[in-house]
Amino acid sequence: MGGTMPLLVMKFGGTSVADLSRIKNAAAKVKTEVERGYDVIVIVSAMSGKTNELVGWVESTSPLYDAREYDAVVSSGENVTAGLMALTLQEMDIPARSWQGWQVPIQTTSAHAAARFVDIPRANMDAKFAEGFKVAVVAGFQGVSPEGRITTLGRGGSDTTAVAFAAAFGAERCDIYTDVDGVYTTDPRISPKARKLDKIAFEEMLELASLGAKVLQTRSVELAMRYKVRLRVLSSFEDTDETSGTLVCDEDEIMESKVVSGVAYSRDEAKMTLIRVADRPGVASAIFGPLAEAGVNVDMIVQNISETAAGHSGATTDMTFSVPVNQVARARKAMEEARATGSISYDELVEDTDVAKVSVVGIGMRSQVGVAARMFAALAAENVNIKVIATSEIKISVLIDRKYMELAVQALHDAFELEKA
Amino acid sequence: MGGTMPLLVMKFGGTSVADLSRIKNAAAKVKTEVERGYDVIVIVSAMSGKTNELVGWVESTSPLYDAREYDAVVSSGENVTAGLMALTLQEMDIPARSWQGWQVPIQTTSAHAAARFVDIPRANMDAKFAEGFKVAVVAGFQGVSPEGRITTLGRGGSDTTAVAFAAAFGAERCDIYTDVDGVYTTDPRISPKARKLDKIAFEEMLELASLGAKVLQTRSVELAMRYKVRLRVLSSFEDTDETSGTLVCDEDEIMESKVVSGVAYSRDEAKMTLIRVADRPGVASAIFGPLAEAGVNVDMIVQNISETAAGHSGATTDMTFSVPVNQVARARKAMEEARATGSISYDELVEDTDVAKVSVVGIGMRSQVGVAARMFAALAAENVNIKVIATSEIKISVLIDRKYMELAVQALHDAFELEKA
Repeated sequence: MGGTMPLLVMKFGGTSVADLSRIKNAAAKVKTEVERGYDVIVIVSAMSGKTNELVGWVESTSPLYDAREYDAVVSSGENVTAGLMALTLQEMDIPARSWQGWQVPIQTTSAHAAARFVDIPRANMDAKFAEGFKVAVVAGFQGVSPEGRITTLGRGGSDTTAVAFAAAFGAERCDIYTDVDGVYTTDPRISPKARKLDKIAFEEMLELASLGAKVLQTRSVELAMRYKVRLRVLSSFEDTDETSGTLVCDEDEIMESKVVSGVAYSRDEAKMTLIRVADRPGVASAIFGPLAEAGVNVDMIVQNISETAAGHSGATTDMTFSVPVNQVARARKAMEEARATGSISYDELVEDTDVAKVSVVGIGMRSQVGVAARMFAALAAENVNIKVIATSEIKISVLIDRKYMELAVQALHDAFELEKA
Repeated sequence: MGGTMPLLVMKFGGTSVADLSRIKNAAAKVKTEVERGYDVIVIVSAMSGKTNELVGWVESTSPLYDAREYDAVVSSGENVTAGLMALTLQEMDIPARSWQGWQVPIQTTSAHAAARFVDIPRANMDAKFAEGFKVAVVAGFQGVSPEGRITTLGRGGSDTTAVAFAAAFGAERCDIYTDVDGVYTTDPRISPKARKLDKIAFEEMLELASLGAKVLQTRSVELAMRYKVRLRVLSSFEDTDETSGTLVCDEDEIMESKVVSGVAYSRDEAKMTLIRVADRPGVASAIFGPLAEAGVNVDMIVQNISETAAGHSGATTDMTFSVPVNQVARARKAMEEARATGSISYDELVEDTDVAKVSVVGIGMRSQVGVAARMFAALAAENVNIKVIATSEIKISVLIDRKYMELAVQALHDAFELEKA
């Protein structure tokens, strides 16, 4: 049995293992943790560019490819890095070996190219730790199906692999090394006052990730939250120590109680409004059912009662929703088809493809009133007109004209004093 | 159970699958055989250049690498080709899937980077053929050890994989597609009269392969001979049919009974002679033991009684042997060390690094006398001086000055009328 030593999971993304010298640099960080007394599970991505090359070959060969063969080909990138990382660690006199998904075995569903974890049995790897191996280097992003075929988790799945191993092995922490040095109160390219957060709650990270702050893959944060895996995001290109980066953790671990933790934005939004929809029970389902079937990613939804229009026999409503700007055509087609079949009726479909979404996120707002009022006041002071509002427990989002996006982000960052620790 | 359809093994080397268009070309040849009614096992190498790239990374990372990690990294090249080949066949509407070594599973010894086959169980693959798969695409050159680690067979191991599958599955034939169109009576670059052989016996092919006609890896021919696998060498860059290439087969299948089938040569030979070795029982062992330990590949050995030299108390002998020219220094060191420890004594070590080996090979010579005489006469007619002679049942080799090598090959090709079918 392993588990006699405290255990860390360390994950290195594609840019962190892009070539042999970067693999060496990453290995040095692993060595530091081994010297601190940890057993380490290292999760590696493919060397940057390799996965794209492999995907390109598959797509050129077979545009509607068999996903089982896609997985067999694409998973090879991580296998190469895993072996090279193990060799690099051995050169540093650290007992290490590589593990491909089927060797652990990392058991997943059969949903090729989008598989989900079923189980990560500890026995094989624990036996090797017990033999004296200090580091297990695991090829990320892959597993094996019940049929014995190689599966992949979909792009970004290496983060999820790291969290799943941390949960399965009861790791003290899961460190995600990447090309940014942590999670910021907002995008530093937009607001120079953006401040790196020492800690952020899982829920907040989820809202920030899905809102476009692409530091961590959403699924990995969900998994971390469910299994209470302490997740740290830090840079593989800087000297780091135990206080570097940003810790994503349970809110109980966060002492400071700011109302708002960050300001997120999304540039590529579109607003669509169905004017004078005949209002009857089930109308929302009649609208959003076809959109879901068409694969449209509807985000915000607002329904207003509109005046009863002349010539209409019942009450009508205006239905507004937001979609990614590149899905507008698909959404329009779905609505026109639904109208043609008579399942919905509306006077007009109005599209506004020139909007952006800006959100404030913070677990503190659950217990604080007046956050929305403060947000709207800050935007009003800059004459930013709000087109749609949507709220959740820990987030308030607005759609605004895209040209005001940067202004709005900076104004909100100031209003909630996010530059102050 | 499979086996209801006749089965072929087809192997494509690195240049035959160098890019997507060549993979497509190879797949078309597979399709032809499927349409003829065969189930097919396709063995693929890595796309040419890929294995060298991977080996380069491993060697740069760790000059004295852990061979288990070397295997884990290097085997990925074949996995990529296998998946791409399966996808290409699927695009041609042929039910195909890829197999990595551990999925078959191809069981090998634990001798990493130089593993040998232990077993190729048929159950998994037979079940898929029974389900209607027509083609199994197998990543060549790899297997899995009893410990569950990936092994490789060493360079050229894909030929051996092909023969092993042909033996395990009782294939009607094992077709090796390569960048030459068959086995020739000698190197066409040296003799324009060289003729492609329709058939050649396993034993002859073995002698030709180990003598430098590098069409097939020696081990694959040995394995084919042991299991009587009919092996065909043909070009992947030409239109081919059932009569293309050269069939390597049991001598019983060969009707024509030429005395000599081919003339082989090896340019990089050196002759070494120990002058006046004190002759006593065990002296050969005292010489060739240290050479073997030093990893020197001794080929021809000739011992002559020399005159009893003045000042020596017993009989002496001259011992001549040939080694690859790049092993001369190592051989000299081994001999000098053996003399220093007193295990052998000799007056002088004479080296001649300017020699070549020329051989005639043919199973017919077992039942024919006068082959050697005819060979020596042909060389004498061209004033080629013979320095060393060695013979086996089906081969006669001579060492000559390197400058006469091309002349000797052509003279022997003429003398045995090899241009005639």
